[in-house]
Amino acid sequence: MGMTMTQKILAQAAGLTQVQAGQLIEAQLDLVLGNDITSPVAIKEMDKMKLQGVFDKDKIALVPDHFVPNKDIKSAEHCKCVREFARRNEITNYFEVGEMGIEHALLPEKGLTVAGDVIIGADSHTCTYGALGAFSTGVGSTDMAAGMATGKAWFKVPAAIKFNLTGKPAEWVSGKDVILHIIGMIGVDGALYKSMEFVGDGIANLSMDDRFTIANMAIEAGGKNGIFPVDEKTIAYMKEHSKRPYKVFEADPDAQYDAEYTIDLSTLRPTVAFPHLPENTHTIDEIHEMEPIDIDQVVIGSCTNGRIDDLRTAAKVLAGRHVAKGMRCIVIPATQSIYMQAMEEGLLKTFIEAGAVVSTPTCGPCLGGYMGILAEGERCVSTTNRNFVGRMGHVKSEIYLASPAVAAASAITGKISCPCELK
Amino acid sequence: MGMTMTQKILAQAAGLTQVQAGQLIEAQLDLVLGNDITSPVAIKEMDKMKLQGVFDKDKIALVPDHFVPNKDIKSAEHCKCVREFARRNEITNYFEVGEMGIEHALLPEKGLTVAGDVIIGADSHTCTYGALGAFSTGVGSTDMAAGMATGKAWFKVPAAIKFNLTGKPAEWVSGKDVILHIIGMIGVDGALYKSMEFVGDGIANLSMDDRFTIANMAIEAGGKNGIFPVDEKTIAYMKEHSKRPYKVFEADPDAQYDAEYTIDLSTLRPTVAFPHLPENTHTIDEIHEMEPIDIDQVVIGSCTNGRIDDLRTAAKVLAGRHVAKGMRCIVIPATQSIYMQAMEEGLLKTFIEAGAVVSTPTCGPCLGGYMGILAEGERCVSTTNRNFVGRMGHVKSEIYLASPAVAAASAITGKISCPCELK
Repeated sequence: MGMTMTQKILAQAAGLTQVQAGQLIEAQLDLVLGNDITSPVAIKEMDKMKLQGVFDKDKIALVPDHFVPNKDIKSAEHCKCVREFARRNEITNYFEVGEMGIEHALLPEKGLTVAGDVIIGADSHTCTYGALGAFSTGVGSTDMAAGMATGKAWFKVPAAIKFNLTGKPAEWVSGKDVILHIIGMIGVDGALYKSMEFVGDGIANLSMDDRFTIANMAIEAGGKNGIFPVDEKTIAYMKEHSKRPYKVFEADPDAQYDAEYTIDLSTLRPTVAFPHLPENTHTIDEIHEMEPIDIDQVVIGSCTNGRIDDLRTAAKVLAGRHVAKGMRCIVIPATQSIYMQAMEEGLLKTFIEAGAVVSTPTCGPCLGGYMGILAEGERCVSTTNRNFVGRMGHVKSEIYLASPAVAAASAITGKISCPCELK
Repeated sequence: MGMTMTQKILAQAAGLTQVQAGQLIEAQLDLVLGNDITSPVAIKEMDKMKLQGVFDKDKIALVPDHFVPNKDIKSAEHCKCVREFARRNEITNYFEVGEMGIEHALLPEKGLTVAGDVIIGADSHTCTYGALGAFSTGVGSTDMAAGMATGKAWFKVPAAIKFNLTGKPAEWVSGKDVILHIIGMIGVDGALYKSMEFVGDGIANLSMDDRFTIANMAIEAGGKNGIFPVDEKTIAYMKEHSKRPYKVFEADPDAQYDAEYTIDLSTLRPTVAFPHLPENTHTIDEIHEMEPIDIDQVVIGSCTNGRIDDLRTAAKVLAGRHVAKGMRCIVIPATQSIYMQAMEEGLLKTFIEAGAVVSTPTCGPCLGGYMGILAEGERCVSTTNRNFVGRMGHVKSEIYLASPAVAAASAITGKISCPCELK
């Protein structure tokens, strides 16, 4: 029986020639990831389970990125716990303040994730690396603990949904609009425990950063993972960033899918997810029909949209313009390297001149951590990935998820806007 | 009877020809300042006292700088309170995220503080503006409330201590070393409720940024204010930054001082205040005699040392070098304008290449706010102004106050160090 791309990766990692949806397998892991929130829990779990040492000091990545530089004493203690564990176990890929970035932007950049890998991370957006043709998925801290100790994890092989992407997105339509459109179409549980496998000739029209954004939000449709085929752009990216060997898997022609969708990217419009679910989407045209929605804050960053393409787009919109009076516009490059590149390209200058502030890399406001928390009644257009009640602050605040282009335009007008509306 | 410089400013502001130490006077205010911690308290006090409106919408400065971009819901609500008050009262000098900076760096830069002014601020380091020949001092939020409503404040005229500065500081000796030396000499209550009046030909050898640093820490010796004479550098600074008229006051030749000290700046050495008081100072030579003191974190910033001269010095030390393994080095330009200038001059690039992170302007870690809080047992060399128990995090953490030069050198070696030690 034919296998999907995900199933083929899992079969190989389990040492099997064939797997099928629903089957329980034990797979070898290529990377186990944790951050400053989840790693301390996993480390304590290892202690409880009396698990000594790690399976491979080169195959664990510890990235304090949520509350660093330390937000408070509690986060300082968590980071200290991770730091000491990393030292004790000589973890190669522990990233200190100054070396770090948001985990899901940092690991591909550092070459730690390549096509064919099986990756678990104690963070729900671990599905990001599917953009490179890897199987990667978020797990709980206990699975992270077991993974760090044994290098293995149990999985129920997922069924799959196929998304056939065709055509080329118009100007100001990005990966974020593609994934918001899909989540709006299938709902936040539309891909529950399933692989979201993206195929089709439209993929060639998506940059790697677009693909990272799309794979990143697979979890917001309930997906077990999101995955892209490996093409020239993928290979160029991996060659630039990684020395690790990669392995290309392709779905069998007779692979089974629970559903198939075809999406003509050229028909998509800038799309915004309204409070309080990512599926609650409206196109910019629908928004134009509504009363204007006043905005207090704009956040451009996160593991979803803090990459260099995202910052370039935002800068293109903000250049020579100024944010609306009273607007707080917070730009957060996802890694130190992206920060540096944005500086070199003059993007940070553009942001500051436009009246934005630029933060050191952090998850920060996305999960209500710090660096832009909302008061009661405040509204934020954000390039992040979740707009749940209270996610970014007060339970009576509102988050509108959008692309960097829409976020930047909204910062200028003070209302949810598309760059096409700007003079 | 002769008056000190401070007494002459206060006499004029009270409409009197003569005042003396200990006298109670009511003075006209040129500026009333509050931040995101103190302004909400003052605003509530105004409500309680049924004070409606402000005395002059151009003479109030509201600068959310401690916990912005909002650290948490509480700080978001505080900022919202300040923002709404500013809108309601049409406050000219309310500074939103993107326009802001640390209050005591921002106000002189924006030209809101000039020689001869009488300034109160609900923040203890309001004494900073004495560098420009103004009388400025920290007050409680109730005084801020009354000041915003009436434009007046009661003062007990302070007695004074004269500090006669001579000579020229050696390389790597800055304003921070001068003021730490003085606090080490007279103690944290050495100038209790007194003016610290700086005079002497050595002042010509101190940059404006050095003088801001010195005046800023007058409160750490208990001083009511610190004040410098107005010279060519002061006038050049004011002409560059302000359109407001300034007024030069000079102490009478027969002014009375409770004490006089002469300090030959050429004899000073890089000086560090050990935990847990700013008076607990040691020169770098004394430190060289001790066991090396390992450091976990370095902070370069704050209202004391986040100005462009400070960043230039730090960059000079960090250029072509890298921070020690495991070191968290956090650089915080004090205002958006300083951030921009530092970027234009390539300083931010130097910091990032050296393995530091660059934060958006904020008081942040200085007062244990966020952006670098310490865990139990951790040590930080910081260019900030207070090293009290728990000031920057856990009660069992330690802060060593130092200049940007010493802080940067310590980041490189991982121990308290002077740039002169670096290869």
